[in-house]
Amino acid sequence: MSFLMEAHNGLSARIADEAGFEGIWASSLTMAASLGLRDCNEASWTQILDILDYMTDACSRPILMDGDSGYGNFNNVRRLVKKLGSRGVAGVCIEDKGFPKTNSFLDHSPESLADPEEFCGRIRAAKDHQPNDQFAVVARTEAFICGQPVEEALHRAYAYRDAGADAILVHSRRETADDIQAFMADWDRSRPVLICPTTYHQTPTAHFRALGISAVIWANHGLRAAVHAMQSTCRQLAAEQSAARVHGQIAPVSELFRLQNVDELAAAERRYLPPARRLSPV
Amino acid sequence: MSFLMEAHNGLSARIADEAGFEGIWASSLTMAASLGLRDCNEASWTQILDILDYMTDACSRPILMDGDSGYGNFNNVRRLVKKLGSRGVAGVCIEDKGFPKTNSFLDHSPESLADPEEFCGRIRAAKDHQPNDQFAVVARTEAFICGQPVEEALHRAYAYRDAGADAILVHSRRETADDIQAFMADWDRSRPVLICPTTYHQTPTAHFRALGISAVIWANHGLRAAVHAMQSTCRQLAAEQSAARVHGQIAPVSELFRLQNVDELAAAERRYLPPARRLSPV
Amino acid sequence: MSFLMEAHNGLSARIADEAGFEGIWASSLTMAASLGLRDCNEASWTQILDILDYMTDACSRPILMDGDSGYGNFNNVRRLVKKLGSRGVAGVCIEDKGFPKTNSFLDHSPESLADPEEFCGRIRAAKDHQPNDQFAVVARTEAFICGQPVEEALHRAYAYRDAGADAILVHSRRETADDIQAFMADWDRSRPVLICPTTYHQTPTAHFRALGISAVIWANHGLRAAVHAMQSTCRQLAAEQSAARVHGQIAPVSELFRLQNVDELAAAERRYLPPARRLSPV
Amino acid sequence: MSFLMEAHNGLSARIADEAGFEGIWASSLTMAASLGLRDCNEASWTQILDILDYMTDACSRPILMDGDSGYGNFNNVRRLVKKLGSRGVAGVCIEDKGFPKTNSFLDHSPESLADPEEFCGRIRAAKDHQPNDQFAVVARTEAFICGQPVEEALHRAYAYRDAGADAILVHSRRETADDIQAFMADWDRSRPVLICPTTYHQTPTAHFRALGISAVIWANHGLRAAVHAMQSTCRQLAAEQSAARVHGQIAPVSELFRLQNVDELAAAERRYLPPARRLSPV
Repeated sequence: MSFLMEAHNGLSARIADEAGFEGIWASSLTMAASLGLRDCNEASWTQILDILDYMTDACSRPILMDGDSGYGNFNNVRRLVKKLGSRGVAGVCIEDKGFPKTNSFLDHSPESLADPEEFCGRIRAAKDHQPNDQFAVVARTEAFICGQPVEEALHRAYAYRDAGADAILVHSRRETADDIQAFMADWDRSRPVLICPTTYHQTPTAHFRALGISAVIWANHGLRAAVHAMQSTCRQLAAEQSAARVHGQIAPVSELFRLQNVDELAAAERRYLPPARRLSPV
Repeated sequence: MSFLMEAHNGLSARIADEAGFEGIWASSLTMAASLGLRDCNEASWTQILDILDYMTDACSRPILMDGDSGYGNFNNVRRLVKKLGSRGVAGVCIEDKGFPKTNSFLDHSPESLADPEEFCGRIRAAKDHQPNDQFAVVARTEAFICGQPVEEALHRAYAYRDAGADAILVHSRRETADDIQAFMADWDRSRPVLICPTTYHQTPTAHFRALGISAVIWANHGLRAAVHAMQSTCRQLAAEQSAARVHGQIAPVSELFRLQNVDELAAAERRYLPPARRLSPV
Repeated sequence: MSFLMEAHNGLSARIADEAGFEGIWASSLTMAASLGLRDCNEASWTQILDILDYMTDACSRPILMDGDSGYGNFNNVRRLVKKLGSRGVAGVCIEDKGFPKTNSFLDHSPESLADPEEFCGRIRAAKDHQPNDQFAVVARTEAFICGQPVEEALHRAYAYRDAGADAILVHSRRETADDIQAFMADWDRSRPVLICPTTYHQTPTAHFRALGISAVIWANHGLRAAVHAMQSTCRQLAAEQSAARVHGQIAPVSELFRLQNVDELAAAERRYLPPARRLSPV
Repeated sequence: MSFLMEAHNGLSARIADEAGFEGIWASSLTMAASLGLRDCNEASWTQILDILDYMTDACSRPILMDGDSGYGNFNNVRRLVKKLGSRGVAGVCIEDKGFPKTNSFLDHSPESLADPEEFCGRIRAAKDHQPNDQFAVVARTEAFICGQPVEEALHRAYAYRDAGADAILVHSRRETADDIQAFMADWDRSRPVLICPTTYHQTPTAHFRALGISAVIWANHGLRAAVHAMQSTCRQLAAEQSAARVHGQIAPVSELFRLQNVDELAAAERRYLPPARRLSPV
């Protein structure tokens, strides 16, 4: 079982990379939130694509893009997939909802689910136009999110597999793993299954392994850590009107520089700039 | 004396806004770092402009953009200023270096400083083309950064004032406020002075007040807090292969939703969507 | 009766401006085509917004944006409207179809039409969030395009007016103005009506005046002229392997410079650059 | 000898492709002009990169990007080169001037030329970071543009070759090919030479062949044709207040559709959309 860590910009992708996760989850929720926007396609697909471009530059791990519902119909999906390939993204996850979509942890009506046949067309279009053979198309079913029973989730998962999906993401917002367990009980394991245990975080990971889950996604935890820290630091700076105490509680500026790889630039200046043009006097 | 808090995206701007700071400092260092890039104009000026567009949407406080050296000559500066106005940015700070610039905490040669006459042309172009009468152009001198004496800093500051600058930012990377103190000793206070006490964070704020400083900028502390927290959370998740313990140490998902103002969207759905189209069933 | 001329980039907007048209029509078809894309929302709304940003810089006439179906639901529409305002766009036209839309001159099924109540929500959201009091929201009905009778077109037009639309665009792809004539026969003229006589170009303009049409949009003619000319010039250059003859048949380079207003830059260099830094030796 | 045709957006690239040119010249002058901007880096490098992204999607021929002076120093150049590769661009041409640059047909002072050693660093950085082995870095010398003698042009060309340039572009704005002829007389042909006979268009192509020129670039003729046609059509529409006569003189709408390849979309709809969702009723 592998683990994917959420990232929402180049920096968080690099941090996740350094921590050793097998892959990066470019989360729709956290990318939108970091922009200051809501998770209902307020940002355009090319604004999100620009974030992915920074992320692939900043990290060496495969990045799975949370592609929402694919930003429209099959034609938008195949255009997205092509562009993701050129930006070095390893795969995309699309979910069986319409456009614009809404975040899965907010209330949903059953009508939010996409017609399965139409959604299978999106999957087929994605696979037929994938930029390379390694590109992964993950089909995510929101059946549980929309209050449907496990039969509907399984019916959809098998249909998405038959349409060409390389893996299935089963989403649930229960506080237990019951949905996931019910799904895995009748899933033939013909494709890997991914989960996002955001609400059912108390379930031991050993249980996911026992169920045969292939990958666990920590889907929003990086940004949640950042929010908590930034709020705390802002409050302290506002109250103390001084950075004297804050200074020791946060990453030093030199750590920003290390993450930015300033040493590589200094070496390149020595290689490519005449001495008089180098910014550094040494 | 007022305080400006660093922000690097829409979310961090909103967090700084909520904490009550008088203004936001859109930091070149942290915007670049958050993208995964270095602080030497690796991002284009329009990529940075896009960040500012998100930030003004996400916060109600005035935003002062750290505009580096202005992204080129006077013509690039006046184009930048015009675009900042249309994005709702309150002002820009430009520094007396060339293009591309390099971060002030890295080593500098004295040659990095711009010709004062040419730099004054950038200031005049900015003021002549400012988008509205309230727009502020802050001239930042890197004289101390480049190893010049206080006389040079003062000479430049007066020249920049005469060229039309609304305020002066005096930058220093000493661990004490000696540079700032020397500058203020001979500055006639004809314009407000801003400082970034990143390295001289131990200096009590009362001292800045006594010197006559108008504004203190916490220039990078939000992102530094975020980096520390994300690194710590990544390490913990990687080690524990579980979010059970992490969950209680970070902001809840509901706090992301609050920062995204999802309630406003739910109310707007009731106003603008027919009942059958609402995503929420209630 | 006023006339709006199509434009698809900054240059064509300036050319239309110089020709004296009262306004500019930023055409979805020609903006997409000029990018090399199809007119079914292959370009994201922010990619189109970027074009509008260039266009308002390049011309002084009011620009009416062909906003397709509004790029999603009411929430996407109000976000679009806000951004158009900040870019200096005078108004937007949205049409009663879903997302993604398809070009009106291609075949349509009746189902392509949007639910009127839902579409009215888009109009209300646009008006409630308009960036200024002068901003115009034009509601375009595709009733005729989708094979509906005049009663449906009128029913929708009145509903859109009641929802707050400032004007109605009635679209038709007949080779005669019969659709328009039937509409105007029963329209109470409570709002201005705009038309795009692309297919019914043989109808004399006097007839539109007699019908009470407020504005005629030449919706794609600039790009069509450019395509014809570029194809012809390419063929000739390819055949002759020489620009000797082509040279006299096309605009001189100096005309590009005039359209770019290089004289203003030369004057600004004299004002803002020290003599040694001016690019021009004079 | 091969021929490259100017293009400034996706559409003009496709038109040039269809006309059979061996390659496309993404012209800095015409890309800027089409945006409504001047040719002195008013557009950011990523705004230009976005145009290239559309162009490579729209045409199958190799595209050589006119990369001005490389948008900064060696570091900006290597970043540009990497991004061009991911967008499918075949090569870049950079010229020996500073940033911002100015158009070569406007007046230049000799000081506009870059220090050769520094410029060689840009070339080496480009080659060391090229995205694939086929990527071409063309070094363009503006020696003649800046009033330097042929010896300086040759000295620079040899230095640029030694730094790794794959080809040399020798630019001249004389009305005869004298500069080019003088250069070729002493050039050892160790690298291909490209020219832009914009001002010396009367020189027979046979003469370029005899001199050993490898490629001729029609550097701005497509946009010049488009400008002439759009101005003429605008004037006629403004004067006649009718498209009746214009209609027959410009490309039909169906030709726009053909260039957009709408047939492919219709076929894809049949493949990927359920019958009820197809936009076309057939």
